[in-house]
Amino acid sequence: MIVVMKPNATETEIQNVIRKAESLGARTHPIYGQHRTVVALVGDLTRISRETFNAMDGVKETVRIQEPYKLTSRSTRPDDTIIELPGSDVRIGGNEVIVMAGPCSVESREQILETAHAVKEAGAKVLRGGAFKPRTSPYSFQGLGLKGLEYLAEAREQTGLPIITEVMTVEAVPMVAEYADILQIGARNMQNYGLLQAVGKVKRPVMLKRGISGTIEELLMCAEYIVSSGNNNVLLCERGIRTYETATRNTFDLNAVPVLKQATHLPVVADPSHGTGYRELVPAMARAAVAAGADALIIEVHPDPDNAMSDGRQSLDLNEFARLMDQLRRVAVAIDRTLGQPSNNGVVTPADLTAVA
Amino acid sequence: MIVVMKPNATETEIQNVIRKAESLGARTHPIYGQHRTVVALVGDLTRISRETFNAMDGVKETVRIQEPYKLTSRSTRPDDTIIELPGSDVRIGGNEVIVMAGPCSVESREQILETAHAVKEAGAKVLRGGAFKPRTSPYSFQGLGLKGLEYLAEAREQTGLPIITEVMTVEAVPMVAEYADILQIGARNMQNYGLLQAVGKVKRPVMLKRGISGTIEELLMCAEYIVSSGNNNVLLCERGIRTYETATRNTFDLNAVPVLKQATHLPVVADPSHGTGYRELVPAMARAAVAAGADALIIEVHPDPDNAMSDGRQSLDLNEFARLMDQLRRVAVAIDRTLGQPSNNGVVTPADLTAVA
Amino acid sequence: MIVVMKPNATETEIQNVIRKAESLGARTHPIYGQHRTVVALVGDLTRISRETFNAMDGVKETVRIQEPYKLTSRSTRPDDTIIELPGSDVRIGGNEVIVMAGPCSVESREQILETAHAVKEAGAKVLRGGAFKPRTSPYSFQGLGLKGLEYLAEAREQTGLPIITEVMTVEAVPMVAEYADILQIGARNMQNYGLLQAVGKVKRPVMLKRGISGTIEELLMCAEYIVSSGNNNVLLCERGIRTYETATRNTFDLNAVPVLKQATHLPVVADPSHGTGYRELVPAMARAAVAAGADALIIEVHPDPDNAMSDGRQSLDLNEFARLMDQLRRVAVAIDRTLGQPSNNGVVTPADLTAVA
Amino acid sequence: MIVVMKPNATETEIQNVIRKAESLGARTHPIYGQHRTVVALVGDLTRISRETFNAMDGVKETVRIQEPYKLTSRSTRPDDTIIELPGSDVRIGGNEVIVMAGPCSVESREQILETAHAVKEAGAKVLRGGAFKPRTSPYSFQGLGLKGLEYLAEAREQTGLPIITEVMTVEAVPMVAEYADILQIGARNMQNYGLLQAVGKVKRPVMLKRGISGTIEELLMCAEYIVSSGNNNVLLCERGIRTYETATRNTFDLNAVPVLKQATHLPVVADPSHGTGYRELVPAMARAAVAAGADALIIEVHPDPDNAMSDGRQSLDLNEFARLMDQLRRVAVAIDRTLGQPSNNGVVTPADLTAVA
Repeated sequence: MIVVMKPNATETEIQNVIRKAESLGARTHPIYGQHRTVVALVGDLTRISRETFNAMDGVKETVRIQEPYKLTSRSTRPDDTIIELPGSDVRIGGNEVIVMAGPCSVESREQILETAHAVKEAGAKVLRGGAFKPRTSPYSFQGLGLKGLEYLAEAREQTGLPIITEVMTVEAVPMVAEYADILQIGARNMQNYGLLQAVGKVKRPVMLKRGISGTIEELLMCAEYIVSSGNNNVLLCERGIRTYETATRNTFDLNAVPVLKQATHLPVVADPSHGTGYRELVPAMARAAVAAGADALIIEVHPDPDNAMSDGRQSLDLNEFARLMDQLRRVAVAIDRTLGQPSNNGVVTPADLTAVA
Repeated sequence: MIVVMKPNATETEIQNVIRKAESLGARTHPIYGQHRTVVALVGDLTRISRETFNAMDGVKETVRIQEPYKLTSRSTRPDDTIIELPGSDVRIGGNEVIVMAGPCSVESREQILETAHAVKEAGAKVLRGGAFKPRTSPYSFQGLGLKGLEYLAEAREQTGLPIITEVMTVEAVPMVAEYADILQIGARNMQNYGLLQAVGKVKRPVMLKRGISGTIEELLMCAEYIVSSGNNNVLLCERGIRTYETATRNTFDLNAVPVLKQATHLPVVADPSHGTGYRELVPAMARAAVAAGADALIIEVHPDPDNAMSDGRQSLDLNEFARLMDQLRRVAVAIDRTLGQPSNNGVVTPADLTAVA
Repeated sequence: MIVVMKPNATETEIQNVIRKAESLGARTHPIYGQHRTVVALVGDLTRISRETFNAMDGVKETVRIQEPYKLTSRSTRPDDTIIELPGSDVRIGGNEVIVMAGPCSVESREQILETAHAVKEAGAKVLRGGAFKPRTSPYSFQGLGLKGLEYLAEAREQTGLPIITEVMTVEAVPMVAEYADILQIGARNMQNYGLLQAVGKVKRPVMLKRGISGTIEELLMCAEYIVSSGNNNVLLCERGIRTYETATRNTFDLNAVPVLKQATHLPVVADPSHGTGYRELVPAMARAAVAAGADALIIEVHPDPDNAMSDGRQSLDLNEFARLMDQLRRVAVAIDRTLGQPSNNGVVTPADLTAVA
Repeated sequence: MIVVMKPNATETEIQNVIRKAESLGARTHPIYGQHRTVVALVGDLTRISRETFNAMDGVKETVRIQEPYKLTSRSTRPDDTIIELPGSDVRIGGNEVIVMAGPCSVESREQILETAHAVKEAGAKVLRGGAFKPRTSPYSFQGLGLKGLEYLAEAREQTGLPIITEVMTVEAVPMVAEYADILQIGARNMQNYGLLQAVGKVKRPVMLKRGISGTIEELLMCAEYIVSSGNNNVLLCERGIRTYETATRNTFDLNAVPVLKQATHLPVVADPSHGTGYRELVPAMARAAVAAGADALIIEVHPDPDNAMSDGRQSLDLNEFARLMDQLRRVAVAIDRTLGQPSNNGVVTPADLTAVA
């Protein structure tokens, strides 16, 4: 850490900074410049906060040299974390790019079963679906709750696909963890620290979505909350940030993929559906996400987007999804990775869906 | 609501939109333009979501004409809501500009008592102090918890100042509500809907802070969650938004004050401490907030900012606060409002603090 | 400047940085930390660019300790710059808060004369009006050009008010400088360096508007272009920045006022009309700007905003402006400043406008 | 266009809107809702500005239904514009993805010749290089000027690569147009309307870069300035926007690629070098840009990035570039496009560079 003194800082103020730093266990190197003095702090600074110095008389600012996250940092653990989902052969973070797909909300037994079979046949490896929905308006559909979890479990039983679903409150963690193979923390809850600590104590992988105004560093600090609570299996998900641009619903910040791959050993997921907000932009940005190096994609798919109860505008239908999977597979090969094969010709036919009935 | 069709929308697609809208209870007015058709929806659209139409074939976009919030809207209730704090003569939302002041965190009994007496003498009417602290790093000080609440209660007993403090989780709502006169929902929890509904069922006023990337409309929708759960006494607090500018810690969006005063009947609070993040900017922006029409201010004050455990960089010391109050009082008078008188000459002396010992 | 090496930087890479820095005339202080090495550079670093080091092998990043602007910095010149407008008693940057007012565009001789008389009577000290208009659409009204300048000059002759008007191209600088008392550089041209250098060679004060995505530091660097070209009389104008918020047309960043007053000796102007974009928000934010310490305000006023050719939505009419001036005067007094007195009762009457006919 | 009246608008105000709209040639459809009235305008609204109505009494807001750009819109011209560079076989906007490469600044004859030969051998089809540099600081290197143009022309002569270079001022347009095959308008000048009109009158393709806070719609409006001045050959370039995120120098908004491909017939270029600002992020984002559908890429390449006079931090060296081209070629094939073949094995050897000496 570098403590930058104001141009007119007194020698007493400088000495106060040095004394304070040393009292906290740091070694100090004051450097007297032409106009300004800076004090460099060296040693284990883990428990030393910049705030301590920022507030002192004569201090202009502090500059952090080391990143503030530790357990999630690639310098702590150079090798990629690979997350295995028990009861399946799904491994996230390895050479295979994993596609998770399904509807925004679980709306009915038929809807989730039909979707599960279709996305499986197209090559998806994980089924997504929301049972508890955070909604901007208190007057909107808020999800089927427990019923939705039960339908997801039935879809898993029929297809073998592990399931990912959101948990919104500390109280709901045990119930959701009983059903889900991956717990999702939504963007609005990225900094809900109580919830992060709760899922940190559960034996389930957690996918943490970046808040719409979260920096990449904050995302890693939030992952640090989960990992430091005892759960190493965290996936980080880019899903669009809020900027001034309104041509897309959010600004899908794909740069986060290579930035995160360098900063951390945790697997990185891209969500082009929420990222862009428009169905017609999803294929281009999904291809781009694979090309940029994402370890997994999460894509909204609905049998009848026009009548979806939420997010229909950004959902692909079953055939659009199957066609997209064909494209993604080719891009994955172009960068020497693999991506799930379809179990049939990749296009859904009525016969494929008999298991639903 | 206006449903805008794509230039090449078919007559069937237009009729589908009309049929859907009418099935939901709306009257429709299709308008056939030179290049495009739009369908205007009229009637009670409260339960009709834009998503329903956005996802339909042939639809380019929808445009909402009415604001999506109702109970919090000034068109629903033209008169200002005035929030009275029982056991005191404090009324927020009336002619008097109320100043709430105190430290970021309650750190010790002495610290909160000394601050409480000092801010009261300078004219503050409510005491702030955090017992539960949301922190970016899991390794930072997280607040004194229940002990902090007890110290706040003791400070209220000694000074008569009502207290405002943050509640971060649903589980903590009953405990915090037992101690606090106003419950604060922090910026990170603006869209923690479970928490909003929980404080909506409690008989205590709630101050809802705008998230750092929350729009003013979203802030009102979140207030709508609280009010529609049964609690009408909501204060809305502007505390800085996240932009590209780094000269300030956040961009204190003072425009929110006149915008909110027009949009809603709820009182508006300004927080120049978090808004700017720098102690030296607080006086100018606090004066500006009064001039812009804020009903209340919340300001961080600490007896020894250099040694504060959090937010010292943006905290005023006791004398700086007393001097600021003198300035604010003059600005309030200039716009025909009042602001709390000091109980002495406005500058804290050692004798003033004997009650602390 | 601090050069931060990567965790795995080699001793050779560190030595290369040291050698490069010393070859450029800096003294160096390498500091070997637990995980990382940093090299501090000391001396006159004016001509040393961070880019030089950022691109070197083994370097993670560089951190600038001194601000990059010099002539405009308050540390170079602690006393406020006061700009006097010859042929008038107007001084900007002193105790009196100066109000500049007038229409967005000069539309006709009658319009500008009527406005000039009215704003003068209400206490304005400078007349604004655009003759050359930068417009988002090539199909919109682009200003009256030279004719507009002539009308402005006639208004000055009748009222004695100095005039401020925008110059958009290098070629137009001599012509505009012949008419204007203050040259305005618009937000879109903040970083049009050729234009900045051109107005830097002219003997007229320049008001430089902050770009809608300009940082405060960039604004000062652009002012540095003007001052280093020979023109010390620069006013800096905050006029709203682009953020995600759409409730206001721009986010009027009033924080820039106290930040600039600390960073530079140049006078600071606030433009609440462009800043907010809505007429009904102008009074609150104009009052706030005075309370925050702005040295001058620039406000759009039009005799008939409903029929203005540009920016009518954010223009006050003549009586609204006169009423606002009464409010601003009171706020100025509350912070021990003055603001122009009206020459009559502050409300415009038909008789006041006879000079126009 | 939809004119939305305020809830309490009077019948007279509504009639004024109708009368005004009809006087401007529009047909009107007033729709009286439960709480509000809206007036829909139909017909040729090209010359009718929203401002006209926004400023009228009783109007809350206006909503535009048609996009404001015409000549650049895909609805005006459904087929892709293909830009051919005379004297070469380069066609931009067709099936082949074109890579433009070269240094940020032309620094010397040797530097540009060495780079030109190397990027050509790796498969680049256009040479980039700046002779006039817009710099944030007036104290930084500002480019070689005319000398730089001459070196670029020599590089073209030796390699056959067409050249793209920036023009910053109206006065410089004839000189730069004499040398360049494509004129570049930099991000800072996106809204320099005089400059746009000047390059609109020149017989050279123009690459228009998106401003760092430009919306996609504004970018198209600026292209409209060029096209409506007579020049149809415009390329649109995404190069990163300004957001709150600081992990990248800018936020490279790759979403702009599919959005623009839908909105306009003009070719779309991606600049991952400026977009991200960091050399190590360029390969991932360049691959992503191809996968997302960009028609061309522009990439900064320097023989010795550590000693580049500008932008070294984001420049690839010659071998990094050759390796990237191999990757890009594979991604292009995966989406059924082509991308320039290397003229040798794709890795630069000393023997390849003999022509430079």
